[in-house]
Amino acid sequence: MTDISALGEFGLIEHLTRDFQGKQASVLKGIGDDAAVVADGEEVQVFSTDLLLEGIHFDLAYFPLRHLGYKAVAVNLSDIAAMNALPYGITVSIGMSNRFTVEALDELYAGIRMACEKYGVDLLGGDTSSSKQGLIISVTAFGKTGKDQVSYRSGAQPKDLICVSGDVGGAYAGFLILDREKSVFLENPELQPDLTDFDYVIGRQLKPEARTDVVLKLREWGIVPTAMIDVSDGIGSELHHISRQSGTGATIYADKLPIDFQTVSVAETFQISPTTFALNGGEDYELLFTVPLSAFDVLKTEPGITVIGHVTEEKGQVQVVLGNGTVTDVPASGWNHFPDKKEKPE
Amino acid sequence: MTDISALGEFGLIEHLTRDFQGKQASVLKGIGDDAAVVADGEEVQVFSTDLLLEGIHFDLAYFPLRHLGYKAVAVNLSDIAAMNALPYGITVSIGMSNRFTVEALDELYAGIRMACEKYGVDLLGGDTSSSKQGLIISVTAFGKTGKDQVSYRSGAQPKDLICVSGDVGGAYAGFLILDREKSVFLENPELQPDLTDFDYVIGRQLKPEARTDVVLKLREWGIVPTAMIDVSDGIGSELHHISRQSGTGATIYADKLPIDFQTVSVAETFQISPTTFALNGGEDYELLFTVPLSAFDVLKTEPGITVIGHVTEEKGQVQVVLGNGTVTDVPASGWNHFPDKKEKPE
Repeated sequence: MTDISALGEFGLIEHLTRDFQGKQASVLKGIGDDAAVVADGEEVQVFSTDLLLEGIHFDLAYFPLRHLGYKAVAVNLSDIAAMNALPYGITVSIGMSNRFTVEALDELYAGIRMACEKYGVDLLGGDTSSSKQGLIISVTAFGKTGKDQVSYRSGAQPKDLICVSGDVGGAYAGFLILDREKSVFLENPELQPDLTDFDYVIGRQLKPEARTDVVLKLREWGIVPTAMIDVSDGIGSELHHISRQSGTGATIYADKLPIDFQTVSVAETFQISPTTFALNGGEDYELLFTVPLSAFDVLKTEPGITVIGHVTEEKGQVQVVLGNGTVTDVPASGWNHFPDKKEKPE
Repeated sequence: MTDISALGEFGLIEHLTRDFQGKQASVLKGIGDDAAVVADGEEVQVFSTDLLLEGIHFDLAYFPLRHLGYKAVAVNLSDIAAMNALPYGITVSIGMSNRFTVEALDELYAGIRMACEKYGVDLLGGDTSSSKQGLIISVTAFGKTGKDQVSYRSGAQPKDLICVSGDVGGAYAGFLILDREKSVFLENPELQPDLTDFDYVIGRQLKPEARTDVVLKLREWGIVPTAMIDVSDGIGSELHHISRQSGTGATIYADKLPIDFQTVSVAETFQISPTTFALNGGEDYELLFTVPLSAFDVLKTEPGITVIGHVTEEKGQVQVVLGNGTVTDVPASGWNHFPDKKEKPE
């Protein structure tokens, strides 16, 4: 008998789905990207699904239910954005034990509704069930884009520029602060946490956004990324996904990585390199994408987009050039939900 | 603070989603039917989602993993069929604790694959996660139909005929037998269960089918049901859904209800009326639909379709005419996932 952890999360999915054969010609992409893509005339339908489990993906000790509802939606819409598509709807299934009151669920749904308002998407289906097992949230997101607008993970070309939106590593910094304050609280419930210096990174952890605004900007600029993925597991892991699926490699520059000063400050506090935060810290939900060199003239003046490196020909080799000029490999091991989160960035 | 059970399953969904406002004009139906319906040129996209939880929706003591995988898919495809649509894809998210081995998950996915083969649908997305909470299966199903072919729950007209495919009550009979054998086994593990007389009803419980074949037949006959729903919670509950949403009532005849002889035999064993099995027993996943009187000439000769009654003008009143001529109200309380299943049919 084989232990699940022997395969790892990505290995397990590949193993379990290896014998499934495509039946519908309209299915352009099934498993293996941020979302599935189904042909639909001049457009494509884009679908993505996520399961969030209490004790694995979130800890209600410091995750307010309203934020949790918002985040559950945002992270799914982020998968739609990562296909260069725009979302139009979601379905939400909830399982909850009887320790939850109607008022607690109202908070959760208030967050779901805020996200629906913010992104202009409809709640297409709802399902609730009791659970013996804490809180379970399953969200499926539905989006659309033009047939020629889809960005898969597999289209990167050597010499393409590697770009990322916003800044990275912040959500992980926020997680570390919240987790530390929880430990302090458990030791001494009288102490009040002081989180004022960490408002930005805590916001990154508790209320991430889907970068549909970047998708709209790309359309405005007439740029279709050759490859795109959202940063849920850390830039290092995402670059390996793009490299493996595109048959290319990647070289990025540590001093180009967009890292907020609060993230740097938390990294110093925990004596971890900010580059490690940026490469391995997950849940930023920024868009990581590749574009032809010709797009540089447009992107170089955009403050919200940073060019961090370029695509290379060395298949599967992801390297980072450190500030001192040293070149080092970035390991493929990304954000792994199976071991304890705290152990990951080392 | 309000206990969840105070609202009931359907009341809770209505409560939680009451403040969501539609944003996309293309969304023809959001919450409140078997599936969501989104306009798409001359066709509509149809989406449905379900969350299956160990200890609530299934008991691994008697549910083989392969059957569970098959059933998880079939019950979702049934929701697509209930919109008079045909499915083309599913996504599956799994959460499982580390007591599951890779070989156990292989069994589960073998069942999922069998269902994909049988119904010609693609697995569009896969997600696995560890769980502290037993086995969790979330399936979303994707289907399509013509714009003029959709059957909502809300279109029934007075005098329409009420029809049901296949037979009903069998899945609940199978559940009772399996549950009894489990109790016997727990008391004396030496005893081998003898299930040979109950193969049909146990199959109804362990391996239900989605009636996509009925959808194809309806197309062949040129019949679009005025209203349709799948029998997941029992005919009584489903008739109340159709009646409430159509603003009509229903009268059905107990002696017209299609009940298999094994179901009758189990009902006798447990000293419950077979009519109660048929009206309150859930999980048959047959299609319950209404058609104009003019369809009678076609349907009367179809062995797999039974006319069981007709739509009336009395809004929300669902009545059954018993064999002795007595007319009695069928209560709205359907298959309720919150209390213990066994308490329901009384």
